[in-house]
Amino acid sequence: MPTGTASNYFANRDDLLTQAGGRIYERLQPDEATMELSLKGPRDQGRTVELMRELVARITAYDIGYLALLELRLEATRRAALRAVLTERIRADVEANVRYHLESGLPGDATMVKLLYLAMNWLIVERLTLPDVFSPEESEELVTRAVERLMPSS
Amino acid sequence: MPTGTASNYFANRDDLLTQAGGRIYERLQPDEATMELSLKGPRDQGRTVELMRELVARITAYDIGYLALLELRLEATRRAALRAVLTERIRADVEANVRYHLESGLPGDATMVKLLYLAMNWLIVERLTLPDVFSPEESEELVTRAVERLMPSS
Repeated sequence: MPTGTASNYFANRDDLLTQAGGRIYERLQPDEATMELSLKGPRDQGRTVELMRELVARITAYDIGYLALLELRLEATRRAALRAVLTERIRADVEANVRYHLESGLPGDATMVKLLYLAMNWLIVERLTLPDVFSPEESEELVTRAVERLMPSS
Repeated sequence: MPTGTASNYFANRDDLLTQAGGRIYERLQPDEATMELSLKGPRDQGRTVELMRELVARITAYDIGYLALLELRLEATRRAALRAVLTERIRADVEANVRYHLESGLPGDATMVKLLYLAMNWLIVERLTLPDVFSPEESEELVTRAVERLMPSS
């Protein structure tokens, strides 16, 4: 194989997919400025709605990355090594979200964070794959209602 | 092309994918007996938790169909005709779920149905693609909590 091909950089296809997944995953994370900003402002539902809308907008804007992760999840059903890496990653991410929320002083427990995680992820899938199922307005409305109904009012 | 190939049955690839999607979608729907049974029993959170667990279990058991629909959604990002058909289908399904719920006498409004739709779909994605992120027990727990927190107590 000529030099410069993928075989020089990745031991095998699992390794390539795993590293690609890791890189995409990193880019989907908020940067430090975003994290710091999210700790500012009142600790209530209204502020959380803002943060959730920003989150959904940020991830939706990086559509190619989010869709690639979805492809990797499908690939993981056929590749145990990839599944193990993605599982580790997503589990750590869910746990970090829970910990971060509990430390933020915002109302709501670990279960609330997980339920928001579930609802927001599928909302992003809808927006990216079949954008006319829920209009942008209805999506924003669903984000607002999800927070209002799942987060205890402070 | 020899007789008996897909070209005899489908005008083109869009047509094939669209029809395949339609068939899978039909098989994911509950049968009449399931629908009738779901109208029995008390009209409260406890019964709804049971129904939601059955729904998640039924769809998860037909994993190959649900994962194929997810592949079709990804394909739809590149094929406008497929996107149009799937959009129509999913939108009708969401509306039918809302109507069915409002007529069932169970508590909760259209927004609640949509938020449960979002959360349950991603829970199924987790179960089917990375089953160790949430254990079966935690999944059941999340279904219960989603209903308890989103559905008004009757």
